[in-house]
Order: sequence, then C-alpha cells, then structure tokens
Amino acid sequence: MERHFDDSLQALKHQLIKMSAMSEVMIADAVKAVVERNPALMAPVWQREEQVNHLQIEIDETCLTLIALHQPAAGDLRFIMGAAKANAELERLADEAINIVQKVEHLLKEPPLKPFKIIPEMAVIAQGMVRDSLHAFVNRNVDLAREVLLRDDRVDDLKDAISLELTEFMSKDSASVARALDLLLISRYLERIGDHATNIAEITIFVVEGRDVRHHADSKSRRI
Amino acid sequence: MERHFDDSLQALKHQLIKMSAMSEVMIADAVKAVVERNPALMAPVWQREEQVNHLQIEIDETCLTLIALHQPAAGDLRFIMGAAKANAELERLADEAINIVQKVEHLLKEPPLKPFKIIPEMAVIAQGMVRDSLHAFVNRNVDLAREVLLRDDRVDDLKDAISLELTEFMSKDSASVARALDLLLISRYLERIGDHATNIAEITIFVVEGRDVRHHADSKSRRI
Repeated sequence: MERHFDDSLQALKHQLIKMSAMSEVMIADAVKAVVERNPALMAPVWQREEQVNHLQIEIDETCLTLIALHQPAAGDLRFIMGAAKANAELERLADEAINIVQKVEHLLKEPPLKPFKIIPEMAVIAQGMVRDSLHAFVNRNVDLAREVLLRDDRVDDLKDAISLELTEFMSKDSASVARALDLLLISRYLERIGDHATNIAEITIFVVEGRDVRHHADSKSRRI
Repeated sequence: MERHFDDSLQALKHQLIKMSAMSEVMIADAVKAVVERNPALMAPVWQREEQVNHLQIEIDETCLTLIALHQPAAGDLRFIMGAAKANAELERLADEAINIVQKVEHLLKEPPLKPFKIIPEMAVIAQGMVRDSLHAFVNRNVDLAREVLLRDDRVDDLKDAISLELTEFMSKDSASVARALDLLLISRYLERIGDHATNIAEITIFVVEGRDVRHHADSKSRRI
C-alpha cells in the first residue's frame, strides 16, 4: 500500500509537470503568433488547450483517488489539496494563451503598430514563472517559490510601461486605437499568467511551511 | 463522530455563504463608487477584502481538517474538494472588486464620459451569478447551477457592447482615451467575476453529477 501511494504521488507530479510544459508552449506559440504575425501558430495553441483540459480532469481525479484510497497523513493531504489548486491555476493560465491567440486575426487586419519589445519580454518572464512555480511545487522548494514571487513585480512594471506607451498611441493617433487596445489586452493576459504562477508559488509555500503567505504580501501591488 | 462531521460540513457551508455575501457587497460598493463618483465607498471594499482573505484561509483549513479527521466517503470528499475550489474562486472574484475600486481615483480626475448604463447592468448580473452559483453549490442544486451558466452569455454580450462603444469614444475623441480605457477594464473585471461564478457553477455540477462539464460547453465564447 505504502509503495503504491508513493507511485501514485509520483504520477500526480508527472501529470502536473506535463500540464505546465504544455502551458508554456501555448504561451510561447500564442505570443509568437502575435509578434511574427503568423496565424499558422494559432491551431497548435487550440489543440494543446484540448489536451490541457483533459489533463485537468485527470489530475482532479488522481487527487480524489489518492485521498479516498490512501487517507494520507496531514502533510501529504496538504500537498494533494495544493496539487488540485495548482491544477486549476495551470488550466486558467492556459486559457490566457487562448485569449492571446484570439487577438491574432484581428491584429493581422492592420499593419503592425511598432516593433514588439515589451510583450515578448513579458512572455519570457511569464513562461519562466510558470515553469519554476510548478517545479517549486512538485519539489517543495520554497526558495524557488519565493524567487518566483519577486519576478512578478517585473511583469507588473512592464505592464505599466506598455499601458503608458499604448495609451499615448491611442491619444495621438485615432487610427491606432483598435490595435493598441488589442495589444494592451494581450499585456493584461500575460500579467494574469504571472498572477497564476504567483498563486502556484504561494500554494507551494503554504504546503511546505503550513503558513499562508497569500495575503501577507502586498496584494495591492500584485493583483491589478 | 457522525454528528460532528455533519456539524463541521454545515459550518463550512456557512463560511462559504458568508464569503459569497461579502464579495457581493464588495462588487456592489465598487461599482457604486465608480457610477456615483463616490470615493467614500472605496474604504469598505478594502476592509471587506481583508475579511475575505481571512475567511479564505479559514475555509481551506476547515476543508483540510474535515478530510483529515473524518476521512469522508467519496461523495462528501468530492464536495469538500469542490468547496476548496469554490473558496479560491470567491477570493479571486473579490480581488476583481478591488481592481474596480482602484480605477475610481483616476476616473474622478476627469468629468464623466457619459451616463452609466451597461456597467451597472453587468454588475447586477454578476452579483446575482455569484450569489446563485454559491447557493447552487451548498445546496447541490444543479438546475440553478446550469441557469447561472446561461447568464454568463448576457455578461459577455454586454462586455462586447461596451467595448464597441468605448472604442468608438477613443477613436473619435483623443481626450476620452484614459477614461474610456478605465471603463473598458472595469467591464473586463466584471466579466471576470461572471467567469468565476461560472466556475463555481461548473464545480457544482461536477460535485453533484460526478461529471465534468468544465470543458464541454463552448469555452471559447465564455473565456475571452
């Protein structure tokens, strides 16, 4: 029985890592579709979302089965409950990649506003946050989790910078409004991805230290 | 022991209902602060967020304790896992009220763009969705849950309508850009509240029917 529980827990971790890896690729492809103006990159994002959705259901069932069959001790129970929550975060952040991709067709109807700089940078940071927050979770690595929390500030700074830039565009040139708005929303979707990764990092600290850091940090600065 | 479990489950439901009621008031006050241009309504929203955050931690602990002490049967376990997820949704949607309130000061620096019509309507629907999705959950009422899912379409339609209207404002009058953008983001925050309520309704159906509807509906139309 003991051995079987460890195997199942290991399988749960693998499922989560697989889901995180798929989400990262979705973010990368979605932003690439925007930046390179390449609509061919949209289909793989949609396909991966299907897979992510199936994985989410599987992971929830794994969590329920693990608890029902093995009645785990407090520490393991906390980890499994954390896994179910991290699972929901991963699914949500994959949805944000879909939101990004849905702007592509609209953006391709008009010439580019200017060369992309901030959005690709936000995407790279957000992807790293997703990967590392999930690795922090499965390896119960609170140092890495705390490091992810810090990176979210950079994402928020970039979001503020691009908001300012795009608002100026819209004020100066009314023909730019639709495009600038799409890009502004894309930056918000990337910010949300950072928020979901932040949530996974906070879940990690909660699971490992039994201490809830979710509302001790300055939530005002991170949840805009 | 049996009686104690039922009492604890009842207490969990009361905690969730309390949290949902607080979130509804937060949404109402936040939107009222915007519509009535009343900054005095901001402070209560912030205060309630503190309480919601505390409640979230308490509810998570209640869920963990219930499982650890009582090793509930499959149906109850599913309900408690669902409660932990609904808990996360409630906290997130309360955060959206904070996002709304954070736009108030900025909006008050300039005269109103036009009388409010769509945003108050979105707010009323979103509040009803929050209340009813949570009631559906605690009462295991799938009919009510399905009814909540349908209401989300109206929220999305209103979001599209206001986006169109505000984009036109921005295109025609560059002086309106900052205000129109704030209002557009507020409409997105309200849409997110509808999404969180939708998630709670989907969790309800999953818990009661053991069937996952999360990705069977047309997620494209609901997750923009």
